Amino acid sequence: MSLLTFQALVEEEEIKERYDLVIVGAGPAGCSAAIYARRFQLETLIVAKELGGLIVDAEIVDNYPGLPEIPGSELGNKFLEHAKKYMTNIIMEEVESIEKKESGFLVRTMDEKTIEAKAIILATGEKHRKLNVPGEEEFLGRGVSYCGLCDAPLFKDRVVAVVGGGNVAFSDAQLLAKHAKKVILIHRRNWFRADPIEVKRVKENSKIEILTPYIVREIKGDMKVEKLLLEKTKEVGGEVIPTGELKEIEVDGIFVDIGLVPNSELAKKSGVAVDERGYIIVDDFMRTNVEGIFAAGDVTDKGSKFRQVVLAAAQGAIAAISVYNYLKSKE
Amino acid sequence: MSLLTFQALVEEEEIKERYDLVIVGAGPAGCSAAIYARRFQLETLIVAKELGGLIVDAEIVDNYPGLPEIPGSELGNKFLEHAKKYMTNIIMEEVESIEKKESGFLVRTMDEKTIEAKAIILATGEKHRKLNVPGEEEFLGRGVSYCGLCDAPLFKDRVVAVVGGGNVAFSDAQLLAKHAKKVILIHRRNWFRADPIEVKRVKENSKIEILTPYIVREIKGDMKVEKLLLEKTKEVGGEVIPTGELKEIEVDGIFVDIGLVPNSELAKKSGVAVDERGYIIVDDFMRTNVEGIFAAGDVTDKGSKFRQVVLAAAQGAIAAISVYNYLKSKE
Repeated sequence: MSLLTFQALVEEEEIKERYDLVIVGAGPAGCSAAIYARRFQLETLIVAKELGGLIVDAEIVDNYPGLPEIPGSELGNKFLEHAKKYMTNIIMEEVESIEKKESGFLVRTMDEKTIEAKAIILATGEKHRKLNVPGEEEFLGRGVSYCGLCDAPLFKDRVVAVVGGGNVAFSDAQLLAKHAKKVILIHRRNWFRADPIEVKRVKENSKIEILTPYIVREIKGDMKVEKLLLEKTKEVGGEVIPTGELKEIEVDGIFVDIGLVPNSELAKKSGVAVDERGYIIVDDFMRTNVEGIFAAGDVTDKGSKFRQVVLAAAQGAIAAISVYNYLKSKE
Repeated sequence: MSLLTFQALVEEEEIKERYDLVIVGAGPAGCSAAIYARRFQLETLIVAKELGGLIVDAEIVDNYPGLPEIPGSELGNKFLEHAKKYMTNIIMEEVESIEKKESGFLVRTMDEKTIEAKAIILATGEKHRKLNVPGEEEFLGRGVSYCGLCDAPLFKDRVVAVVGGGNVAFSDAQLLAKHAKKVILIHRRNWFRADPIEVKRVKENSKIEILTPYIVREIKGDMKVEKLLLEKTKEVGGEVIPTGELKEIEVDGIFVDIGLVPNSELAKKSGVAVDERGYIIVDDFMRTNVEGIFAAGDVTDKGSKFRQVVLAAAQGAIAAISVYNYLKSKE
């Protein structure tokens, strides 16, 4: 079943007024939580803005053990179908608020639906910080990637750009250099936030060229990424200023490593504690500071440290086990 | 590929003298670690006594997200094949000792092979404490199970026995009661280690019958479990004594919940710290107390708390990421 077919199916869903568990998010963590919760026979509803999570952006995922070389969208679908097989209800809506009630929570959606729930799992994931340039969205999965660990092996003997100045960009550049013919690391400043040891290694790597100070203005191509339009910058009093000097380079791919941001606005509004970077703080049982609210996946501090599908799925499982034990303890 | 074919393939394997990483164990944690390590281009060898881990004992696994209703042996195979796709070397041998060397470790097998490794991941898993009665091995996967969470849904409208007096037995009995027609909880004493609340719940559950004090003497059947031969016991000064009084009951299945034990002898011999139950102590990065030795899966304190395939796989991934970072830091 394609994501679109799945979406059409979900749109016809009839939902109840009351659930044991509402899961916010339908990525690997949310779906895994639903599978486990339904195995415990908890009435479960997934509310999600989008289906499948960030993973559906990956051209090929080859590090989810047991399902080698699977397109990200297909893996997202497999999770959804597994959850659906257990009769999980799913609706595509954004959650507006989660209100603590005497006997649980009141979940309100942007579309003004209200649903009662005894427990909540937040599995809202992260979003990539975007370059916000033409071509970025168009070539997603066709040369534009946000994950070196996921997609590096796809660029064997190709020329790829990495954009960013932090440890992720520098680590991706080195990882890519193991596969690619040439890696061009582009950064808007002449200095880098990355650890000096990483910078040293990148500078010593004959396959990596550092191109600074430049920002990306446009990603160009026909069916896939072919060129980048860059603009030179200068730093004035710590500020990065475009100079108007343009430059075009030929590449087969571009890794955008300028950061990820957690989708934790709802968590914060609901009184759930987050760390200084905005990630939900969870314990080993995926409990948050709010009794009855659990969290799993890349929106959590523990998940975002590694950002792996299999870890998100594991955390979803643990969260559902914890919900089951929590509800049993309240019976 | 069947496990046997896989085994034959592995037996022809030619191995090197030196590896970046030796992984002990070929279950979900070990295979996942190998997949990740090979993606980091680490030379990787798996040494394992058996292939696939405990999971291959499960008739059907339906809680590994993305691969619904898969026979345990097939899931084990999928992990092995995924690791093999990345050209992981695998040998079927028992590791005798791991010796710390200047530049890493010397791994010695029972068959007197020696292999050098820069880092080690212990993924040796657990073994079930067995009843050690006739029929137990014969009917494994055909009525004999060691995992309620895995197999409970298979016993819809059937009669099943649960053996044990701890929380796992009592939790499995309740979970089984949601699916089965009748659950018979058998224990060798008249009192239980399980929490009083669990005991109370089981006693109040009309679908569960408690049968004590009995021990199981034999599991009988033709193609699958049909009957249990029990022997009455009595407690004398805290000791459980068989009375010779026999009883036969008809069941469709038996869950043996008398505990699991970690395969951590090798870890202990190698100076790796274990908790009071014998499980390897790891931090969030799957590091043990010995620099260069990591651990993952159900042999760890963090893994054994939940005992889920997806968690073992996630921990294997984290362990390999940590090995990569560790070796990079030593370069």
